Amino acid sequence: MDKIALDKLNAGSEDDFVRGLGDIFEHTPGLARAVYAKRPFSSLGALYDAMETAVRGQSRDEQVRLLQAHPDLAGKAARGGTLTADSKAEQSGAGLDQLSDDEYARFHKLNDEYRKKFDIPFIVCVRRHSRDSILREFERRLGNEPAAEEKSALNEVLRIAALRLDQRASATDKLKVHGRLSTHVLDVHSGRPAQGIAVELLAVPKSGPQVFLAKAVTNADGRTDKPLLADQPIPIGTYEMRFSVGPYFASKAVKLADPPFLDVVPLRFSVAEPEGHYHVPLLLTPWGYSTYRGS
Amino acid sequence: MDKIALDKLNAGSEDDFVRGLGDIFEHTPGLARAVYAKRPFSSLGALYDAMETAVRGQSRDEQVRLLQAHPDLAGKAARGGTLTADSKAEQSGAGLDQLSDDEYARFHKLNDEYRKKFDIPFIVCVRRHSRDSILREFERRLGNEPAAEEKSALNEVLRIAALRLDQRASATDKLKVHGRLSTHVLDVHSGRPAQGIAVELLAVPKSGPQVFLAKAVTNADGRTDKPLLADQPIPIGTYEMRFSVGPYFASKAVKLADPPFLDVVPLRFSVAEPEGHYHVPLLLTPWGYSTYRGS
Amino acid sequence: MDKIALDKLNAGSEDDFVRGLGDIFEHTPGLARAVYAKRPFSSLGALYDAMETAVRGQSRDEQVRLLQAHPDLAGKAARGGTLTADSKAEQSGAGLDQLSDDEYARFHKLNDEYRKKFDIPFIVCVRRHSRDSILREFERRLGNEPAAEEKSALNEVLRIAALRLDQRASATDKLKVHGRLSTHVLDVHSGRPAQGIAVELLAVPKSGPQVFLAKAVTNADGRTDKPLLADQPIPIGTYEMRFSVGPYFASKAVKLADPPFLDVVPLRFSVAEPEGHYHVPLLLTPWGYSTYRGS
Amino acid sequence: MDKIALDKLNAGSEDDFVRGLGDIFEHTPGLARAVYAKRPFSSLGALYDAMETAVRGQSRDEQVRLLQAHPDLAGKAARGGTLTADSKAEQSGAGLDQLSDDEYARFHKLNDEYRKKFDIPFIVCVRRHSRDSILREFERRLGNEPAAEEKSALNEVLRIAALRLDQRASATDKLKVHGRLSTHVLDVHSGRPAQGIAVELLAVPKSGPQVFLAKAVTNADGRTDKPLLADQPIPIGTYEMRFSVGPYFASKAVKLADPPFLDVVPLRFSVAEPEGHYHVPLLLTPWGYSTYRGS
Repeated sequence: MDKIALDKLNAGSEDDFVRGLGDIFEHTPGLARAVYAKRPFSSLGALYDAMETAVRGQSRDEQVRLLQAHPDLAGKAARGGTLTADSKAEQSGAGLDQLSDDEYARFHKLNDEYRKKFDIPFIVCVRRHSRDSILREFERRLGNEPAAEEKSALNEVLRIAALRLDQRASATDKLKVHGRLSTHVLDVHSGRPAQGIAVELLAVPKSGPQVFLAKAVTNADGRTDKPLLADQPIPIGTYEMRFSVGPYFASKAVKLADPPFLDVVPLRFSVAEPEGHYHVPLLLTPWGYSTYRGS
Repeated sequence: MDKIALDKLNAGSEDDFVRGLGDIFEHTPGLARAVYAKRPFSSLGALYDAMETAVRGQSRDEQVRLLQAHPDLAGKAARGGTLTADSKAEQSGAGLDQLSDDEYARFHKLNDEYRKKFDIPFIVCVRRHSRDSILREFERRLGNEPAAEEKSALNEVLRIAALRLDQRASATDKLKVHGRLSTHVLDVHSGRPAQGIAVELLAVPKSGPQVFLAKAVTNADGRTDKPLLADQPIPIGTYEMRFSVGPYFASKAVKLADPPFLDVVPLRFSVAEPEGHYHVPLLLTPWGYSTYRGS
Repeated sequence: MDKIALDKLNAGSEDDFVRGLGDIFEHTPGLARAVYAKRPFSSLGALYDAMETAVRGQSRDEQVRLLQAHPDLAGKAARGGTLTADSKAEQSGAGLDQLSDDEYARFHKLNDEYRKKFDIPFIVCVRRHSRDSILREFERRLGNEPAAEEKSALNEVLRIAALRLDQRASATDKLKVHGRLSTHVLDVHSGRPAQGIAVELLAVPKSGPQVFLAKAVTNADGRTDKPLLADQPIPIGTYEMRFSVGPYFASKAVKLADPPFLDVVPLRFSVAEPEGHYHVPLLLTPWGYSTYRGS
Repeated sequence: MDKIALDKLNAGSEDDFVRGLGDIFEHTPGLARAVYAKRPFSSLGALYDAMETAVRGQSRDEQVRLLQAHPDLAGKAARGGTLTADSKAEQSGAGLDQLSDDEYARFHKLNDEYRKKFDIPFIVCVRRHSRDSILREFERRLGNEPAAEEKSALNEVLRIAALRLDQRASATDKLKVHGRLSTHVLDVHSGRPAQGIAVELLAVPKSGPQVFLAKAVTNADGRTDKPLLADQPIPIGTYEMRFSVGPYFASKAVKLADPPFLDVVPLRFSVAEPEGHYHVPLLLTPWGYSTYRGS
């Protein structure tokens, strides 16, 4: 889907505006209509700020209606196929369309308890989460006071909106909704960047198989040409990078044990800030290595 | 099984000696009988040396008969139940009694090619190997010249004998047939040994599930009370230690991300010398770590 | 001077006992006489405990007299030559006999202020200190309340006594009055201990030239045959170990830059606990290194 | 001195050209005159290439005259004050104008031997060297065959010319005559860049006092705002960076020993390639650190 340029939104009719941005807030095009009046927007950030102002300026009743317009997470709407296209894409990204019967039952039970306590569906910006972290978040937020939880839910609505806006509209500025994962391999055996090391990135759920996410090969500067993850929030969760260091040193005619002491080096770490920059380098010799959260 | 003390072997009758040590060499009690004449032995090493001398002093025909007395690896004898007790225990240790039909077929094919080329069964000291390394060794040795391969096979017979002797007889000295795997966790965040970190050791085959081998918790010196592996050769192959560092730092009230950047730290490495000492330490902060082959 | 064995002290006369241990407390042989009555002592620790009990059991007047029996630090007694042999040896160890006129004046001024405020000489166990740390301690303790400072001074008297006792008497146990500084060099370039690396240890005062303390060469295990410092408290202060790593890698025919990136590696650190064990390893390649407080 | 823009050189008269660039080659303005004919130059690199071509295209006699036009290093010309302004500035940069009488005598002796063997003065691009490395180079080159040494000397003349050209003329491109030294401090104790750490850079000669070169404070990214060295070749030699890490951790309210285990961290390394990029990071906790040649 091509993005709509900000200047078109600024210059277009109200109907075009609402057609373009009306579903930024789930089933609530009235918010886009209200924002239209604030044109023109000098930046995407200014447009988002106007949207946030509109939401925060609603009465509590309106806000609750906005919250109630959202579907249950992994709920009947999801299985029954009545989700908005956005919700559907978001939920499948976190694997919520592939729950086992047990997991479905667990989500269902949490949904029921949550609805009973708060009278709204559980809303979370799933593109910032893994299945594990959604579950943890769900249980954590069930313990909130109702007023605090309404605030949490509204914050999630705004996070969802920011990501939808980021996908829908283009401008010279960017919304701060993307994280980045990068690496850098230094060969401390020969004192130079390690070129030609294959790297794989996997998601590591608490249970179930690991999920392949990306692969790359380090360039002459020991980096990958592109970040391993970028242009998206990095879902909260655990990851593993795997570096094929055995073949690298073998290709350098370095004297190695057979099999080499280090062949595949796994670095496992967790992401807590989906919009953060995670730089995780590897300092390497055939007999040892270091890693750390860099910058 | 209780070990027989060296002084009893020195003082006992020839029949007792052969009963105790006759099966050190597969189906070849005559070698034990020949060694009996060299009593007394001042050490277990001296007894082993006498055994090696007896084998190396045999005629080529006798040596070939000794080699031919061994069963095929993972072969019909194994499936048909006619192995010696020693061979059976050794082969099951490397998982050779649990081959899939495909793997069994592969071994069978290698056995056939090997027998055809060398007219002896493929002999390898399986307690020094994983399934992966046996297969690699098998393919490597198939490329040998016959004379070199007879020498390789005889060396393996002696390695098997040394390990059987080590299991059978006790003395104040030890044969150098054991390796050792140890670790040490230093908390470089607080400048002291990391106490209370759970460590798991797994074997990591090239394919198929990882196999749990041992677990331990670090003590006040950051070490495990006993080495993770000792009193045996460490099978050539790949291993992973997993350190539960997230709970450790949480218990120290260190400010962490949520989830913590490091929770389970996997260190993966390969062993090439089954009799070697592998000391693989972990230098740790909540945000990074180093490892290396230490001493 | 030969040490007096504990059993001789236990078995000897009161006069012998006091002759042997009378000057453990400066100019106060009465304390040794009081302790003699508690014989026999099962260990050196028990003898020391009896001494501490005797001091702590004194009246406040007696304790103040004990404190007043001590000379000024770097004071007139030192320059005038009326120190006890113990005090003289202790003060020269910390370099207090080689003060510049300015430093002498500064100590003199601190002594005067201290005497004026507390009416006792400033007492510190100088064998646990460098000139820098004595000065810092002096200034810190000048801020104490008189009651707290008397307690501090008495603690120092006991530390001095323990060290004198340790030098004077021998037993199967040891008093915990010694620290230890050791190192270990791992060659992570080749995966083994680094043998043959020359190490120098120097004291690094805040001003003035560095002072050579010890040198050694690493053995086959990458360690020095003996700790760099042992059998003494390690004076609080700053130290530098210097490792000659350039010649080591050159001797291994490792390809290096010219001049090599790393030639002499200095590790600088401070000791805060004179009785602690400081293990400061070096993990080394030709292009980088790590160090940390180990255990 | 303002640089002359390349387009002015391209557009100007031959006299202006020679006035601007005539002393790029010592006492040999004829080379600039020869190059003038090749105008216009599309880049500074193209101008330099034309100069190199002119030199390499000279007859051997002309080349020897060019070499002979250079002054002795630290020789009579230097003491007598008859150096060109360029030579004077270059030699003083390496401290050759501040030799002790012994050093002067040593240089003088080398000069004599060199002249006797090769009949030219010893020429070296001193801006790429420290006093130590010039001496080493001098001794090394004295061992050359005459033909090889003439080639070496001519290469140095061209290096000198490139640096003079770089100082004299400006263009959109740059000659590759500059090195760079940078650092980066990661606080692995808290998982973020270390901001506010003071760094000092010193030159470390083999003998004599260390020489202060630069200082800086790390910014929010753990880097210094500008490289510690840039816009010049980095003289071959040994350097030490000193990081004030004690005050940094103290300001973070990290619990430290007193005095802190690490206060000033010295990193000592040597530069072998004056035009190289030396990135030497520090990974830091209060209890240990790593460094390496990065990229």
